[in-house]
Amino acid sequence: MCRFFELRPHARRPWRMEFQVFLLSLCLCLFAAPGWSQDSVPRYSPPELTDLPMIFETSESPILVEAVATGLSHPWGMVFLPGGGMLITERGGQVRLLRDGLLEAEPVPGTPEVYVRGLWGLMDIALHPDHAENQLVYLTYNKPADERMTVALARGRFDGGAFRDMRDIFVATPDTSGGSRILFAPDGSLYMTVGGAFTPGTSAERAQAGDWHSGKVLRLNDDGSPHAENPFIGSEGFHPEIWSMGHRNQQGLAINPATGELWAHEHAMQGGDELNIIRRGGNYGWPEVSFARLYNGPRIHQQPWREDLLMPETFWVPSIAPSGLLFYTGDRFPAWQGHIFVGAMRVGRVRGTGHLERIVLNEDGEEIAREWILEELGERIRDVRQGPDGLIYLLTEADEAALLRLSPAEP
Amino acid sequence: MCRFFELRPHARRPWRMEFQVFLLSLCLCLFAAPGWSQDSVPRYSPPELTDLPMIFETSESPILVEAVATGLSHPWGMVFLPGGGMLITERGGQVRLLRDGLLEAEPVPGTPEVYVRGLWGLMDIALHPDHAENQLVYLTYNKPADERMTVALARGRFDGGAFRDMRDIFVATPDTSGGSRILFAPDGSLYMTVGGAFTPGTSAERAQAGDWHSGKVLRLNDDGSPHAENPFIGSEGFHPEIWSMGHRNQQGLAINPATGELWAHEHAMQGGDELNIIRRGGNYGWPEVSFARLYNGPRIHQQPWREDLLMPETFWVPSIAPSGLLFYTGDRFPAWQGHIFVGAMRVGRVRGTGHLERIVLNEDGEEIAREWILEELGERIRDVRQGPDGLIYLLTEADEAALLRLSPAEP
Repeated sequence: MCRFFELRPHARRPWRMEFQVFLLSLCLCLFAAPGWSQDSVPRYSPPELTDLPMIFETSESPILVEAVATGLSHPWGMVFLPGGGMLITERGGQVRLLRDGLLEAEPVPGTPEVYVRGLWGLMDIALHPDHAENQLVYLTYNKPADERMTVALARGRFDGGAFRDMRDIFVATPDTSGGSRILFAPDGSLYMTVGGAFTPGTSAERAQAGDWHSGKVLRLNDDGSPHAENPFIGSEGFHPEIWSMGHRNQQGLAINPATGELWAHEHAMQGGDELNIIRRGGNYGWPEVSFARLYNGPRIHQQPWREDLLMPETFWVPSIAPSGLLFYTGDRFPAWQGHIFVGAMRVGRVRGTGHLERIVLNEDGEEIAREWILEELGERIRDVRQGPDGLIYLLTEADEAALLRLSPAEP
Repeated sequence: MCRFFELRPHARRPWRMEFQVFLLSLCLCLFAAPGWSQDSVPRYSPPELTDLPMIFETSESPILVEAVATGLSHPWGMVFLPGGGMLITERGGQVRLLRDGLLEAEPVPGTPEVYVRGLWGLMDIALHPDHAENQLVYLTYNKPADERMTVALARGRFDGGAFRDMRDIFVATPDTSGGSRILFAPDGSLYMTVGGAFTPGTSAERAQAGDWHSGKVLRLNDDGSPHAENPFIGSEGFHPEIWSMGHRNQQGLAINPATGELWAHEHAMQGGDELNIIRRGGNYGWPEVSFARLYNGPRIHQQPWREDLLMPETFWVPSIAPSGLLFYTGDRFPAWQGHIFVGAMRVGRVRGTGHLERIVLNEDGEEIAREWILEELGERIRDVRQGPDGLIYLLTEADEAALLRLSPAEP
C-alpha cells in the first residue's frame, strides 16, 4: 500500500488526494487564523498548596516540597522544641503546637492578650538557650497600651501543653506598632527588633530618636533588662536597650555563623528593602537617607547616601517585602551551607507573589550570587528556618497558610 | 448491601472489616511516612514555547501569548514594516523577514560583515521616519576594526527582499564592543547607545572619557553626523556625537510620549541595573559611583552617590539584565497606557529566568508600581515592542528563540 502511494499516488485517485490536502489546509487555516477561538487555549495555573508534595527545580538540584501542616492563619514565627515538635505563632494571637507531625486543633493556652490591627498582632517566638531545663519561651507581640498599642516581649514557661506565668519583661514606648523578631545570640543575649518607623513626617523620624524604641534593634538580657554592653547606656535621651538605630520595619534577624555578625533585613517603602549587618551603635539612616520612593511616587530624598550613615550589604529594588532570615548550616543541602535564605512576600506593589531567595556570599562575606527559589509556587513566604533535621522549613503568609518542608529530591 | 453494612457490619464479618481497615492504614502509612517513595511525586515543569498559545494571568486581566515565529537564533531587535511584516535581527549577523505571518527561511541579503563574539554581534534595527518613501533602514552592530572590534551604525535601503547600498555612516572608537540600541526621535534625530564600558580598571573608565564612544548615548543626524545641538561640540577631548555619558551597557531606549523625555536602562555589574531619564550632557556616574558589586563580591565603591552625578529613576537589585524598553500607547491594553515595559533576561547570576516587567508611573512620571509578567513562562526577554496593531511583541533570548505576541485574552 505504502509502496503504491510512493510510486503513483496521483495516478490512482487524484481527486481524493486533493480533497485530503484541502481538508488539511482548512484545518490549519481555522487553527492559525487570527479569528480562531480562544476557548481551546490552555490557561496557565500555578501549583496550589493542595498539589503538594511536588518537586521543584533549583540551580543546584531539585527539591521536594511538602506541606507539613495546613490551615494556619497568618503564621509569623516558629521554633523547634528540643523534644520534637514545633510551636508556631499566628498573627491573630494564637500559638499552635505541632506534635508527632500533626497540628493540634486547639491553640496553646496561656498567651498574652494581643492587639491585632492590620499586619500587626502576635509576631515572633524564641526559646531560651536553656529551654530544655527551664522551659522558657519568649513571644513578641503588639499589645494594647494607653488606648493605642505598642510592641512587647513576654516570657513564660511551656510545659508541653500550655504556657505558664507568661508576662511582659519588656514593653516599648507607647504608640509603637510593627514587626518584631527576636533571636538569642550564642552569648545568651537576646536581640529584638522593633518596627513602627513607617512614614516620613509621622512615625519614620522615631527611628533617629533615642527616646523611641521604634526603628531600633535592641539588645536585652534574658530577663528583658538592657544588656550591659549597649552603646547608649548613660547617653542623654537614649533608651538603654538600643543596640542600633535608623531602621524602618525589620522582619528578619539571624547570626552569620561564619563571622558571628548579626544580620537583619528591613522593609523600605517603595523600592529599597535592605539587608544590613547590624553593628553596635550603628545608624542605618532611615529616614535621613533612602533609595525608596513614597508610595505615591516622589523620592523620599534626593540624597540616597551619607558618609556617616551605614550602607546596607544589599538592597531589593523592587521591594520583595522580606520576612524571615536564615544562614543555612545543615548537611542535607551541602551546596547551600553558609548561604542566606530570605522569605519574600511580594514583588512590587501590584501583584502579590512570593519566593524563597538564596544569597551566596564569598569567603569575605560579600554577595556573589542570588537565586529565586519556588517562585513557581507563588506563595508568599513569612518565615524560613532550619530544622534540627537539617531541612528547611517555611511558613507561607495567607488566611489559609501552610508550614512547608524542603528536602533534597531523590535523584 | 449498603444498608446491610450500615446496620450491622461488625456483626456479619468482623475480621474482614478489621483486615480492610488494616490494609487501608498500611497504605496510608506507606504514603505518609518519611520513607515513602518520591517516584509518584509530580515534578513541576514550566510551560515551554511549544505549549503556546497559552493564557497567563496578570494583575489587570489575562493575556493570550502566542508564538508568531520560532526558530530564531538569539534575536536582538525588531521593526514593523509600514506595509506589514517585520524585520528581526539575529545576533549572529542575520536579518530575518517575517511576511504574511511566516518567517522566511533565508535571511535578508545585503547585511554588513558582523564580528560575532560572546554576547556581541548584530544588534538593533530601526526604520527611517520616512522609510515608506526612502526605504532607509539602520543597523547597529559590532564589526571588525584594527584586528579588534567596534560598534558601527550602517544605513541602507530595504527593497522588500534585500538590503541595498548598506554601508557604515558612523563607526565608534576602535576597541569598543557591547550592546547598542538605536531610536529615531519625533524630531528626526537618531539616538544611539554604545556599550562597552564594562569593568573598572579596564574598560569602565571609558564611560567618563570624552575621547571614547563607549558608555555613551550619542545623538546623530539621519546621515550619521553629529547633531548640531550636542552638548560637547567644540569641547576639547570630546567626540561631537556624545549626548550623555557615564553609562555602562545599555540595551533599552525609548521616548516617554507623555513628556518627550528620552529614557534608557543599563546593565550594571552585580546588582544595580539602572533606569535613567537621559538628559543633554548628563553624566550618569559609571564607574565613579555605583551600587553594584564586582562579580567576585567587593563593592565597586564605598560611595554609591555623588551630588554632581545624575541619579537613576530606579534600579533593579538584584540585576534583571534588562533589554528592550517600551512605553505602551496602544488601545488593546487600555489599563497599560503610558506604562513602561522592560524585557528581563535573568534574575541574579545563578539561575537564568526572565520576565516582562511593567512599571507604572504617576502623573508626574514617578514610579508607583511594578509587576512581573510571564515569569511563569521562564523565557528570557530580549526585546519588547508595540505593534501597529496595538499588541505587544516580545523576542525571547535563546539558541532557539521566538517572537511572541501578547493580546488580551477573551473573557
